[in-house]
Amino acid sequence: MKTRAAVAFEAKKPLEIVELDLEGPKQGEVLVEIMATGICHTDAYTLDGLDSEGLFPSVLGHEGAGIVREVGAGVTYVKPGDHVIPLYTPECRQCKSCLSGKTNLCTAIRATQGKGLMPDGTSRLSYKGQPIFHYMGCSTFSNFTVLPEIAVAKIRTDAPFKTACYCGCGVTTGVGAVVNTAKVEPGANVVVFGLGGIGLNVIQGAKFVGADKIIGVDLNNDKKEWGERFGMTHFVNPKEIDGDIVAHLVELTGGGADYTFDCTGNTMVMRQALEACHRGWGVSVVIGVAEAGKEISTRPFQLVTGRVWKGSAFGGARGRTDTPKIVDWYMDGKIQIDPMITHTLTLEEINKGFDLMHEGKSIRSVVVY
Amino acid sequence: MKTRAAVAFEAKKPLEIVELDLEGPKQGEVLVEIMATGICHTDAYTLDGLDSEGLFPSVLGHEGAGIVREVGAGVTYVKPGDHVIPLYTPECRQCKSCLSGKTNLCTAIRATQGKGLMPDGTSRLSYKGQPIFHYMGCSTFSNFTVLPEIAVAKIRTDAPFKTACYCGCGVTTGVGAVVNTAKVEPGANVVVFGLGGIGLNVIQGAKFVGADKIIGVDLNNDKKEWGERFGMTHFVNPKEIDGDIVAHLVELTGGGADYTFDCTGNTMVMRQALEACHRGWGVSVVIGVAEAGKEISTRPFQLVTGRVWKGSAFGGARGRTDTPKIVDWYMDGKIQIDPMITHTLTLEEINKGFDLMHEGKSIRSVVVY
Repeated sequence: MKTRAAVAFEAKKPLEIVELDLEGPKQGEVLVEIMATGICHTDAYTLDGLDSEGLFPSVLGHEGAGIVREVGAGVTYVKPGDHVIPLYTPECRQCKSCLSGKTNLCTAIRATQGKGLMPDGTSRLSYKGQPIFHYMGCSTFSNFTVLPEIAVAKIRTDAPFKTACYCGCGVTTGVGAVVNTAKVEPGANVVVFGLGGIGLNVIQGAKFVGADKIIGVDLNNDKKEWGERFGMTHFVNPKEIDGDIVAHLVELTGGGADYTFDCTGNTMVMRQALEACHRGWGVSVVIGVAEAGKEISTRPFQLVTGRVWKGSAFGGARGRTDTPKIVDWYMDGKIQIDPMITHTLTLEEINKGFDLMHEGKSIRSVVVY
Repeated sequence: MKTRAAVAFEAKKPLEIVELDLEGPKQGEVLVEIMATGICHTDAYTLDGLDSEGLFPSVLGHEGAGIVREVGAGVTYVKPGDHVIPLYTPECRQCKSCLSGKTNLCTAIRATQGKGLMPDGTSRLSYKGQPIFHYMGCSTFSNFTVLPEIAVAKIRTDAPFKTACYCGCGVTTGVGAVVNTAKVEPGANVVVFGLGGIGLNVIQGAKFVGADKIIGVDLNNDKKEWGERFGMTHFVNPKEIDGDIVAHLVELTGGGADYTFDCTGNTMVMRQALEACHRGWGVSVVIGVAEAGKEISTRPFQLVTGRVWKGSAFGGARGRTDTPKIVDWYMDGKIQIDPMITHTLTLEEINKGFDLMHEGKSIRSVVVY
């Protein structure tokens, strides 16, 4: 079949809207009509050539929502008509990782996914006879895409695609880091570094679970209003305080935060986030993706005196099990998504979405097919 | 009253055995006759002048066991005749830290303890009218010492002092890091870096809780026999393997360890310990004390993909609550201490104990009064 898609033919060039050939789903695979997709920093990271493992030509996009249109042999989890969110972190429920009960990082199809291929080692996408790579196992910048059955989360049918798609990455990453990774408890004091889309979702996650102080840290004062909209109780601009930001936050939290979250990707900020934790029990969660080659450092004394340094990928959410819950929380009004979707675009306008992001003018731009 | 004690009059000099004046216990304090005391690396660290906060003249020693001989006003937890272990990590059960239920690092008397003084801001020890500093709130290199009531753990009276004293630091630090900090579960794979006294206690802790593979790593092949004696299943000498020690350990554990422990104090080893953890859930615990100014580093990707970096002080053991349990486990034969006490000395021979430690000839030397 044919599908309209935005193709990244090479790094650092705008995406091109073309018609691709798409092979139907093979054994264990499903064909999904993507109804909406967010444009995430990770797509830009790859398109800008910063990801040394980035593959071209490819169809980017990993934050989508759509409808199953066809299923391959042996598929039992979904049927045509089901609404789904593609999962760049699948959930096979059979590998060592899934069965450990300790992580969401399913390893069933990791090797081929990293190579831009389906689990059988081939691509379903091609252009004029030339194979096009899949991206993060999703390729949601294509109106139709093929995914492994284990890489879609079935969601309720009354959730709007335009907002539900954000649960395919940003919302789940932020809210999940609070709920699944840190397991923030009611009454805890929380500090969030970086108030972009992820940071705002961490803030609303912290509010959702009943945190007490929710302190947002950002160099841009415009973020104050955004943070407050989602539950932030205090805003700190490091440029506007006297002295050390860590000491300031320790003071503000009465001895240090119970939980801190880095949503910046800056390794110096990651260190501040750890050291702003309370002695004895503070937990710091790294969410942001650092530049290649950058390292985090601290004195080991920080750990020996009880601070814990951990990280979170896709919010620690098990793809098929936990992503639908995030959608439910949204539909039940427990978390918000609508105000975060600042721009709605057509596929033809997708490069504008990247521009808005680079210019810091959007929280989330969504392409609606 | 008078007490015989080994005094550190200045750094880098042998201890001197003299008779000190000891003031009796004030409100909330107890007088303890120390019956035995271990000589720990931390005592040597201070005596060697490596601790920038080390105070002189002082009575070192923090790993003792003894008998309560007198109690000050208001003391209710112990009475004369009770057997106790002095606690450099006290447990007041009333401060924010104790009440958090999340840490053993009681803060009730931290400020004065760090200054070598009792909670009222004075010393009970003096020599020819000159005050002598307490050390880590314990000063077990004195035959009699005064301690705050919250800084002694009451233990069973049938436990021999010569071995029970080791629960005042080394045994609890190692076994506790497994039980309290890492909470290692049966069937887990464990790697222990550094097979000194702490490392051996981590090994026997891992065996006690039912770990599967227990891998010891040390540059000294003589440690293999020691490790095996306490439950080590595999020994790795980094000098004797081809290639990278981390890759070797990941291979040996089938993907990485569930838990790793640094008992070396070497920050490069701490990094290896983290990176030898299993993707998704491996937890690395820093126990060793690093040189002043040294920092730990890694790529944040190690955390984002699910490894956790934490630390442990006094094995995460709440002083009064958990230390007596460690003594019980020893008395019940669940853990061993006797073979670790390689040398028994008189107080007059105490400097020999430091020499044996520096020469790597002892696991633990104990002074018996």
